[in-house]
Formats: sequence, C-alpha cells, structure tokens
Amino acid sequence: MPLSRVRIVLIATSHPGNIGAAARAMKNMCLDKLVLVRPRLFPHEGATARASGAGELLENARCVDSLEEAVTGCRLVIGASARLRTITWPLMTPRETAQKVVSHYDETDVALVFGREHSGLTNEELDLCHYLVNIPTNPDFSSLNLAMAVQLLAYEVLLASEEVTPASQQGQLPAEVEKFEGFVQHLEQTLTDIDFSDPRKSDKLIRKLRRFFMRAAPDDEELNLLRGILSAAQGRKSMRRDETSKE
Amino acid sequence: MPLSRVRIVLIATSHPGNIGAAARAMKNMCLDKLVLVRPRLFPHEGATARASGAGELLENARCVDSLEEAVTGCRLVIGASARLRTITWPLMTPRETAQKVVSHYDETDVALVFGREHSGLTNEELDLCHYLVNIPTNPDFSSLNLAMAVQLLAYEVLLASEEVTPASQQGQLPAEVEKFEGFVQHLEQTLTDIDFSDPRKSDKLIRKLRRFFMRAAPDDEELNLLRGILSAAQGRKSMRRDETSKE
Repeated sequence: MPLSRVRIVLIATSHPGNIGAAARAMKNMCLDKLVLVRPRLFPHEGATARASGAGELLENARCVDSLEEAVTGCRLVIGASARLRTITWPLMTPRETAQKVVSHYDETDVALVFGREHSGLTNEELDLCHYLVNIPTNPDFSSLNLAMAVQLLAYEVLLASEEVTPASQQGQLPAEVEKFEGFVQHLEQTLTDIDFSDPRKSDKLIRKLRRFFMRAAPDDEELNLLRGILSAAQGRKSMRRDETSKE
Repeated sequence: MPLSRVRIVLIATSHPGNIGAAARAMKNMCLDKLVLVRPRLFPHEGATARASGAGELLENARCVDSLEEAVTGCRLVIGASARLRTITWPLMTPRETAQKVVSHYDETDVALVFGREHSGLTNEELDLCHYLVNIPTNPDFSSLNLAMAVQLLAYEVLLASEEVTPASQQGQLPAEVEKFEGFVQHLEQTLTDIDFSDPRKSDKLIRKLRRFFMRAAPDDEELNLLRGILSAAQGRKSMRRDETSKE
C-alpha cells in the first residue's frame, strides 16, 4: 500500500519542525521513505512533536552525507525548485511530475529532492537532478514552507497513483545516477586527453556538458555507446569493436 | 491579482501556529481574506512567527463569533471534512471544489471552511455548507494538519484560476535543423577518424546517436561546444582554445 519506491530527500534542513511536518505530510499521502542529507538537528523533539502520528517515519529515516548517497539506485531524480532559473532545465509542474513518477513506478526508485529552507539546491545538487519541478505560486510571495512543498508534491503523487495510469510509458528510463557520474568523469578525462580543455579551469565547461547530457537522460545502452566513443577518442581500444585496434 | 473573493474561514483553531502557517499558505497561493471564528489564542506570537512574510494577512484577519457571521454574503460555502461522514452530503474532491469556486468567482464571494484541529465541524456548522470537500489521504492516517489542508485547497484554487498555465517553460530554443544536421555529419566523420566506426556499416549507430542528441535538443551554444570537442578529437586545432594547439 505505501508508495515505498518514492523517496523524499531533504537537504540540510535547518528547522527540525519542518522534518517532522514533512514526515506527517508524507504519511498522510502514503509515502514512507524519508532520507535526510546532513540535517542540522536530528533527531530532535521539535521534529517528533510536529510528526504527530508519523513518528515511525522519523525513526526509519536514513541520514546520509551527500545527495549523491541519498539518490543511489534512483533512475529518476527530481528537484524542487522555487524559482525559475536562467539555466535551461526540463521544468515540470507538480502534476506532470506525479504522472512521471507513477508511470515509472514499477521500474525504479524515484527521489523527490528538497533543498535548504532559505537557499534551495546548490548547483552541484541540481547537477544530479534529471528534472526540476516548480510549484505554481504567487509571484510576489513564492517561498513555500518546506513541509508544505512536500505536502503538495506528495498529494499529487497519491492522486496520480490512484488514477491507475501506468499505461503512458515515457520511453526508456535513464541510467542510474552512479553510471551517469562515471560517464561524466570519463568525459572530463577525455577532454583533457584530447587537449580540448585544461582540467584546472574546466569546471564551467563540465557543468554545461553535464547539463546537456543530463537533459537527454541517457539510458544504459546510450551511456555505453558514448563511453565507447570517448575511449576511441582517447586512443584506447574501442569497447565496441570486436577486432583488435590498429595502433 | 489576489483572489480576494475567496475567504478562508478557520473555526476555533487551538494552535496559533496553525493560523500563521495557514496565512502564509494562503499568500503563497494568492489568497488574502482570512476569517477567524473564535480562535483560542489570537493575536499570538506563535501565529506571527509561522506567518513569515504573510503578517499582513494576520493583521487584516477578521475575527468573528460564529460561522454564520463569517460567511455572510457568500453564496457558496464549502466545508473541509476529513472523514467521509455518514451524512449524505454533496462531497467534492479538492480539484472539483476549485473548479466550482473559479466558475462562480465573478458572481459571489466564496467561503472555504476549516473546522477544529481535532473535532472538525459541528453539525450546526455543516448545516451552513453547500458542499463538503474531502482531501484524498492515506485511509490509515487521514488526519491532515490544518494549515496543510488550507495549503492544498488554496493550491488547487490557484491552479484552477490560472488554468491557462504555460508553467512548463522549456528554456532555450533548440538550434535550427540545418545546424543540427551539420553536427550529425561532423559526428559521423569524427567516428570514422577516431577509428570508432566503419562508415559502410554505421547507419544504425548514427541513427541511435542522432536520436539521443535530438532528444536533448541542443541550442546553438551547445552545438558549438560539441563540435569543438569533435574537432579536438579529430586532432584538429580546437575551435575553443585561444592558444595554438601543441602538436
């Protein structure tokens, strides 16, 4: 019954009350997997008080050190973003997000990621997200309380899950986050090897490329293909050719 | 701009924090008319703290002695009900409720009525409601926090009022088709040059890669970047480096 493949990931939450309120909101909407990345104060009585009858979600919450660790094994990572950023990113409404989560529910764990109360997600954290979700709000007062944002998305996920709409498959699932990271590292190394970039000043370049490839959400086969091309560009034996490489 | 004909009516609220959180939730969703029926503690610093930037909703909140007084002038009164009651009552979902509110918005003030934290609405209060709205929840843990319930209904009302939601902005426009084709040809040539593929049998491979890159819908800048990498892999002078290439 609980939608256990949907993780709610809260990053560096300042107010323990928000963690408790988020847990209650989750349980109200049949979610039960809470992952906390470096919470400021946890466990904490302020969290327990606001959780009301959802204390077991706090007890079972997983505490980790990085978002990367929190989303391990997820092939769908969706970050909640308060503002429209200048960055080009596939941006979804909560309803579209819930549809996507539900349509892939049988195939993978999914992470819905919520940033810090005041500053949201860092660029490095955004880099790990396949999509961003923006909750429509009053443009003059757009900053939602963290637990409220969790409540709204959890509500949409519950509604979508009850709509019994698996049907509309969205194509292949992207590869797991770890595999994608492996590809990005390989890409970075290759750019140095082929004299395209200086590793000491390539941060901005790599971010651009990472976003580009993340947007395309490559699946396992595509990542293998891309890595084969990188290896060939590096002058190593291509992984795709059967015959021995002619050096 | 604010949806001022929609009143949020809170009856005999026990926790001032809930009043503050409800005010913030309302302002986030463009609602600004708060009516309090016999609040236990109000004004109160607990309400002010949770209201965050929505303090003026608390200052302008109307305090009255009865629900009857709170809904004066409304031709549409909708009560939030946590449980399905045995009473036969026209019961709506939050989405249906929002549709109804918006469809009558030009004709009348509307009241969305929320009962006490633990006991909801009395029969006498229900008698004043034209409809009830039930928020879908986990049947084993259905009691929503009061402010969360306000947040969810306010969100649905905002969405319904905007309906024409362009929301999912897709950022930059992709590059023109000719440019994309130029990139694909460059990619194909590079794969041959780096000994990755045999041009006579690479059709299927190129098709796969083309689909992958097409899905990411690169813009002009991204195409230039990718072509720079291809040139570097071909061993030609990279278009991106200013200094002379060291051969």
